[in-house]
Amino acid sequence: MLRSCAARLHTLGVLCDVSGRVRSSGPARRSFVFETVIHKDPSLPKPSWSKDMRLLFDQFMKKCEDGSWTLLPFYSYKRLQNVQDFITFFHACFPTTAKLIDKEQLSQAPVFTESLKDVLGFEHVMFYNDVEKRTVCLFEGGPHLQGMFGFLHGGALATMIDATVGISAMRAKGFVMTANLNINFKRPVPLGSVVVINSQLDKIEGRKVFISCDVRSVDENILYSEATGSPSPEENVAPVLLCSPAAEHPIV
Amino acid sequence: MLRSCAARLHTLGVLCDVSGRVRSSGPARRSFVFETVIHKDPSLPKPSWSKDMRLLFDQFMKKCEDGSWTLLPFYSYKRLQNVQDFITFFHACFPTTAKLIDKEQLSQAPVFTESLKDVLGFEHVMFYNDVEKRTVCLFEGGPHLQGMFGFLHGGALATMIDATVGISAMRAKGFVMTANLNINFKRPVPLGSVVVINSQLDKIEGRKVFISCDVRSVDENILYSEATGSPSPEENVAPVLLCSPAAEHPIV
Repeated sequence: MLRSCAARLHTLGVLCDVSGRVRSSGPARRSFVFETVIHKDPSLPKPSWSKDMRLLFDQFMKKCEDGSWTLLPFYSYKRLQNVQDFITFFHACFPTTAKLIDKEQLSQAPVFTESLKDVLGFEHVMFYNDVEKRTVCLFEGGPHLQGMFGFLHGGALATMIDATVGISAMRAKGFVMTANLNINFKRPVPLGSVVVINSQLDKIEGRKVFISCDVRSVDENILYSEATGSPSPEENVAPVLLCSPAAEHPIV
Repeated sequence: MLRSCAARLHTLGVLCDVSGRVRSSGPARRSFVFETVIHKDPSLPKPSWSKDMRLLFDQFMKKCEDGSWTLLPFYSYKRLQNVQDFITFFHACFPTTAKLIDKEQLSQAPVFTESLKDVLGFEHVMFYNDVEKRTVCLFEGGPHLQGMFGFLHGGALATMIDATVGISAMRAKGFVMTANLNINFKRPVPLGSVVVINSQLDKIEGRKVFISCDVRSVDENILYSEATGSPSPEENVAPVLLCSPAAEHPIV
């Protein structure tokens, strides 16, 4: 089962093609995660972005000029090719749960972080540094993400942390799923303020990928949250884990 | 500072009035968390709820008849009284970050879990058992909460876990904020399926509240996630922490 699924992953190009680079077309070279055409990307600057968000975006775009940093296109399933192959892969990995999927209902489903795109929700953009193995997410939580009155909901911040560490892991290891997320909320994030989510690949041990992450204010003086990737006391626990058939019984 | 803020909390009734029971009116008896009028609650059954969700809701409503369980009204800031007092309290607790709040922008802001109420998003309802100190959330993640194709986004599940353990903590200790959230994602949750988030108060040590939580399928056979409340290796870390001025430097 493990071998057949690994073979299938290679056939689909899932394990080897998450670099975002331009690749020649062909069934064995398909990318399931990134596209290279970024000019239509919804994470590019919007008029609604704050001055802080725009300034920080410009600073990182400047860093991209020498090639050390790369602007990451928005992660969207609408851009994925061969959705049916993707579903088939999931059925191979998670036969018990995947059969519960209602395909009809999902055909038009957006990615969660895109669900509030018509209002102020998950305003964000990500950059990646391949040498440092770092992913930086500039995130401006809109008023629709409110938790305690006037502050960002912990779940909304967890969502963007999950998305950012997920990108870091995928850049390092290919297709992955988050298995453990451990967040220390140091201070509440005021709604509408810009934060920088800084995600760092710590190490890879076999199929386990260890990522650490912190969330800071634009001037870096305020540490809002830390998300650590240390293994839990249980055996065989990984913060971010390569998806495989073994995960069905269970991931962690 | 700590003393003055605690005194203010008592004046506002934040620490002592989160039971949801009918109370006589008066400045010192106000509830900031729950209202007693539940017939307008948006978490009550909707035509869009699945059969599983509706059946489970009816089962728990049946359990409410002998008073062992209580249906919790939806948590909404629109129902909060004395919002200005609430903001003042936050300024006392988090002077550095609270001053960044844009009150004008927030006046109409919904709670995050209510942001997708016009489409299928965070469909949920909560019940509480005071004797067992348990909070159960019935959660049906709609298609707007998609993460990996066909599955619930980890951040969306983290949001509902955060909301559920938060309610457990508030029932036990009054006004709280989540300081640490540690989630093991055992299996991905198929989008559109109903899960039961079961949150249990483990212990209270001073101002620290320890909560554990798991997420299971309706028939309880599939364990999707566990959220533990054990302290992290750092000192003075609490999974869910009573908000106090000391938290500014920092919470954990």
